Amino acid sequence: IKSHTDGKDLAIPEAIVELMDPIPASVAVGTTVAAAVEAVRRAQVPTELTYLYITDEGDRLVGLVVLRDLMLSEADATVDQIMLASPFALHVDMPLSEACKAAVRRHYPVYPVVDAENRLLGQVRGWRLFEQQIIEISAQSGQMVGVQKEERSFTPLFSAFLKRHPWLQLNLLTAFIAAFVVGSFTGTIEKIVALAAFLPVLAGQSGNTGCQALAITLRGLALGDVDKRPKLHLVLREGALGIANGLLVGLVAAAAMWFYASRQPESASQAPMLALVILLAMSGSCLMSGISGVLIPLGLRRVGADPAVASAIFLTTVTDIVGMGLMLGLATMLVL
Amino acid sequence: IKSHTDGKDLAIPEAIVELMDPIPASVAVGTTVAAAVEAVRRAQVPTELTYLYITDEGDRLVGLVVLRDLMLSEADATVDQIMLASPFALHVDMPLSEACKAAVRRHYPVYPVVDAENRLLGQVRGWRLFEQQIIEISAQSGQMVGVQKEERSFTPLFSAFLKRHPWLQLNLLTAFIAAFVVGSFTGTIEKIVALAAFLPVLAGQSGNTGCQALAITLRGLALGDVDKRPKLHLVLREGALGIANGLLVGLVAAAAMWFYASRQPESASQAPMLALVILLAMSGSCLMSGISGVLIPLGLRRVGADPAVASAIFLTTVTDIVGMGLMLGLATMLVL
Repeated sequence: IKSHTDGKDLAIPEAIVELMDPIPASVAVGTTVAAAVEAVRRAQVPTELTYLYITDEGDRLVGLVVLRDLMLSEADATVDQIMLASPFALHVDMPLSEACKAAVRRHYPVYPVVDAENRLLGQVRGWRLFEQQIIEISAQSGQMVGVQKEERSFTPLFSAFLKRHPWLQLNLLTAFIAAFVVGSFTGTIEKIVALAAFLPVLAGQSGNTGCQALAITLRGLALGDVDKRPKLHLVLREGALGIANGLLVGLVAAAAMWFYASRQPESASQAPMLALVILLAMSGSCLMSGISGVLIPLGLRRVGADPAVASAIFLTTVTDIVGMGLMLGLATMLVL
Repeated sequence: IKSHTDGKDLAIPEAIVELMDPIPASVAVGTTVAAAVEAVRRAQVPTELTYLYITDEGDRLVGLVVLRDLMLSEADATVDQIMLASPFALHVDMPLSEACKAAVRRHYPVYPVVDAENRLLGQVRGWRLFEQQIIEISAQSGQMVGVQKEERSFTPLFSAFLKRHPWLQLNLLTAFIAAFVVGSFTGTIEKIVALAAFLPVLAGQSGNTGCQALAITLRGLALGDVDKRPKLHLVLREGALGIANGLLVGLVAAAAMWFYASRQPESASQAPMLALVILLAMSGSCLMSGISGVLIPLGLRRVGADPAVASAIFLTTVTDIVGMGLMLGLATMLVL
């Protein structure tokens, strides 16, 4: 367990060795069952004893025996006859994430850990790897908005501040890009001020649609679904959901715009056209949001980054620009 | 395993019975060790055999024996002498989430399952409960934006559409509230059109700050951190982070507003005051966002709902209204 004083506020293990327990009992190849039973009797940590490990003269792991087979075998048989030879083992230098993946597929109660020469170093209980996965996956919704994996509700305030703040400044920078887009249409907004009220509607709606696609993609990456089928399938799926949702939500928003604009004396005559603008902008931006919600995490992974990190920040940049840009651009073309 | 044809596209187990395996071996109280070893030899599913269960004449669970103790005991001893009496067991009617919590604290490889009369029904492997937890927690970032727990990347398109769409309409409804707030300041926007460009900045920034607090709170609820300390502590923590982040981000945004406004002839003289408005609005709305990010999931849980469900949708309603409302309200008061 790591010290809690070095600025790292939470001990998220990074190496297998941090999860490793000592080997409770091992015997040499050729040992008789009777002697092996005696080794089990002498084990230092009997409750941790799930397998009896079999090693060669160089302390290398050559097999393991399950207690049931040991119990049911003749006393003068040797462990070689009942052992599972060359058992699956974790390598001590394996990244923890890889060890977790290996464990999740196998579900063994305990995994032996070996070094590069296959020497037996210790064992890791299966539940520790599962627990690790749970902690990793529970970090995802925070990572999307710039909260680090390590942060939990008991992380010291200043440390949390230092780690979150740069992402908020990045978010601001991306918001300025969106603001610049809006700012380049001030002429349009001055003439049709109703559009200002619909800016947050477009941004919020396409942002939420995109975050739905993003969350499903990240979940699929975490659970291994995504790599089982063509990526294009996922892009098409979220694109289709985006445009279908955008069309229906757009119809309601268009009706609201029609109602709103027709009550303002200066925009009453433009109400139908403004409603059309909202419908087109909503459908188009939700289509783009769905697609971006798939492409952003896949792209982050492609460049070697964690697919979740700041993904929602990057996504809302796209959705803000496309959503508000489309609305103001279409309004400028179709209404003015 | 559930049928995949009944509209439920993914078999998320809801009851312990869906994860249950048969009991590999059990013997009656009073059985000798020799006879118990024989029962283990005859077990139908020997690889699943971790414990030998001990039952009374009514088939009720009274104890369990670990194989190591069975192996090391004298043949004419009885299992009563070596069993762990009244072992922890899952109740078949227990909600799965409760079973998961029980397992996560205990880390046993296998859990016996009993009915209300303590009759032994089967067993559940510990990894299945862990796996269940992983699937549950991986759903969180989607649930926040209205994607159901059941949805994965292979869920049929139409089913995903039907389940996501109502939440997007709800999101639209809440966006209209924010739009109504903006709409009630059209006079202000007409006079200072620079404010329109800062609407998405305020909304996006306070939304992201709030989502950071939301994610940490949901993570803490999932991992059990949150219930270990006073809730007020968490509210104060996220409030402090909100205002600290809001102040620093607000300074940068205020500088941008100053620069932007001073280049427009009609708002040049108002530039310093507009910058102050941005700073105050950003700090205030990020403070509110941080607090809301804690209170919304806790509130959802208090009323019996899943704390993650649509939490980001509710949160952004608050952050949109407070962020844009504060900016436009302060501008109306201080600048006009």
